[in-house]
Amino acid sequence: MAMISPSRRLRRTPFSEGVEAAGVTGYTVYNRMLLPTVFRSVQEDYHHLKEAVQIWDVACERQVEVRGPDAGKLIQMLTPRDLRGMLPGQCYYMPVVDETGGMLNDPVVVKLAEDRWWISIADSDLLLWVKGVAYGYRLDVLVDEPDVSPLAVQGPKSDELMARVFGDGIRDLRFFRFGWYDFQGRGMVIARSGYSKQGGFEIYVEGGDIGMPLWNALMEAGEDLDVRAGCPNGIERVEGGLLSYGNDMTDDNTPHECGLGRFCNTATAIGCIGRDALLRVSVEGPVQQIRPIAIDAKTLPPCDRPWPLMAGTRKVGQVTSAAISPDFGGGVAIGMVRMTHWDAGTPLHLETPDGSFDAEVKEQFWI
Amino acid sequence: MAMISPSRRLRRTPFSEGVEAAGVTGYTVYNRMLLPTVFRSVQEDYHHLKEAVQIWDVACERQVEVRGPDAGKLIQMLTPRDLRGMLPGQCYYMPVVDETGGMLNDPVVVKLAEDRWWISIADSDLLLWVKGVAYGYRLDVLVDEPDVSPLAVQGPKSDELMARVFGDGIRDLRFFRFGWYDFQGRGMVIARSGYSKQGGFEIYVEGGDIGMPLWNALMEAGEDLDVRAGCPNGIERVEGGLLSYGNDMTDDNTPHECGLGRFCNTATAIGCIGRDALLRVSVEGPVQQIRPIAIDAKTLPPCDRPWPLMAGTRKVGQVTSAAISPDFGGGVAIGMVRMTHWDAGTPLHLETPDGSFDAEVKEQFWI
Repeated sequence: MAMISPSRRLRRTPFSEGVEAAGVTGYTVYNRMLLPTVFRSVQEDYHHLKEAVQIWDVACERQVEVRGPDAGKLIQMLTPRDLRGMLPGQCYYMPVVDETGGMLNDPVVVKLAEDRWWISIADSDLLLWVKGVAYGYRLDVLVDEPDVSPLAVQGPKSDELMARVFGDGIRDLRFFRFGWYDFQGRGMVIARSGYSKQGGFEIYVEGGDIGMPLWNALMEAGEDLDVRAGCPNGIERVEGGLLSYGNDMTDDNTPHECGLGRFCNTATAIGCIGRDALLRVSVEGPVQQIRPIAIDAKTLPPCDRPWPLMAGTRKVGQVTSAAISPDFGGGVAIGMVRMTHWDAGTPLHLETPDGSFDAEVKEQFWI
Repeated sequence: MAMISPSRRLRRTPFSEGVEAAGVTGYTVYNRMLLPTVFRSVQEDYHHLKEAVQIWDVACERQVEVRGPDAGKLIQMLTPRDLRGMLPGQCYYMPVVDETGGMLNDPVVVKLAEDRWWISIADSDLLLWVKGVAYGYRLDVLVDEPDVSPLAVQGPKSDELMARVFGDGIRDLRFFRFGWYDFQGRGMVIARSGYSKQGGFEIYVEGGDIGMPLWNALMEAGEDLDVRAGCPNGIERVEGGLLSYGNDMTDDNTPHECGLGRFCNTATAIGCIGRDALLRVSVEGPVQQIRPIAIDAKTLPPCDRPWPLMAGTRKVGQVTSAAISPDFGGGVAIGMVRMTHWDAGTPLHLETPDGSFDAEVKEQFWI
């Protein structure tokens, strides 16, 4: 492994100072911004996440803000999910597709008001697609990236920590709902959501100046809860089947291939740009789909490229995220598998740079 | 400094195997792809680049291919540079702007034919902007990212090395022109261009499978020329005033602020999306502009965020790329400076995380 070379282009965040003070040892780059990947070790971070509470700098979940009379129309153009029933105060996971039905991003969209939305994006410059479409259609909207940086609080002790800083009312917040809460006189959108299966919140911090005061307040309030700086965990997220855009899916894939068919209402999503392309697959289903894959391995190299999944000499899929699970034993992975071999229990072989391993399609992820 | 965590999302290139075998020690991420930054040390790589010849994996300069009857029309929509006189076989450096005149990218565009263009992009998902605009305007074009990975050959001995592999005819190629050359029966577009001031070529390698055979052929042919794996050098490119999108400019900046006014023909670039927004600044000039900045320093921290340029207590600009120059002595930097203080010889102070340094606006870069 090599070092990461710092430059302005790999943007720091309002929380970078806290991350560095906490002793970050690994980074990735996400939306051209630094995203921590390791503090003590991936394994130690993993156990702590499942037992206590962590503060995550996920400022790299940049927002695309869409405002104006045509905002709702534009958002519906982006996705095959029917948004007509969505109310202000709700968050929706929303596949975004291009005119061919290929995934451009898998954001969470936050409806602040009828004419004001945030798209909390995964790793692609979705801003450019939204701006291009808005310009081409001459829509009456403003589209930009606001100074909003999400900070996540994740782990079983999240409710306790958040209540100490934002008041007990936050315990009543329902999953994928958000509310406005006060911190030092500043209103903050807080949602019950996050990129782990351990429960928690995401705080949409508006204004970089309030970032470190909030970070420090959470760290101080949680000292006896063993709060630590953390980050999305490469083992826990695979166990939980949390997909990663760019890893487990790209613009080559439809939402249906990604197992996101339940978020598509292609028949009624009038105006969706990829609707024509997706109508047939939405009825007939895809020919390949994401599946949990168990690997009979004690160690695995880093999954830095797709690993072929073989049935004999025939390639029937690929694994794109993999880890050794301390809690479940052996290898856990996310793979894309052809229909002919995607039934639970199907035995396969996985080819990695460190050799071949026995693998098996599982019924469900490890949760 | 921290390690970079490997994942499929940080894409490998057709040349990664060669890069790793050559002992890469640092990476950045560019267009969601690995870009080497250091082999032996930035200083040792720098001296070698100026004396010999290097092979650079710049596959991260992804291509946006635009094909079809409306291709020329769409390309002209992207830029205030008037492209009417451009012939097939030419490459143009081309500022790309949005409807506000803000820079979205500063690519080199390659005109393969009247109806087929490659945009060789800097670090932003320009593909999404081009697709969005094409879709919104219902243009008769295909827009995608082809399997094309540039490999650069840079340094004073580039001509000699390239002639050994592609034949003596390549010595006659003019600056920013390209031709088709043969390697093992495969046609390759080769341009005289590159991200250094030491001379050289960029080979647009079509098809990942031919990547390592070409890499190895160049390495073998250049053994007595002391050919090495290299990469864009953080000192040499600042000395030479080669701008970096995301470092020295962002979508907050117009081309004129970036000193790219000579590539803008705003009056005649009919169809350019940002034309209205740029008409006034193209006549009156910008209020801030990129300048070479000399720093009175023996060491500098990595420039991982904008450093304020001060005139007394007043902020009059910022430095976004900086290095200590072995050949020219002291600090060399790229900064954006307000009109009131941009004249050559103006003394300023530079604020860095390691303290304040005397700085001065220079007449020209160090070439």
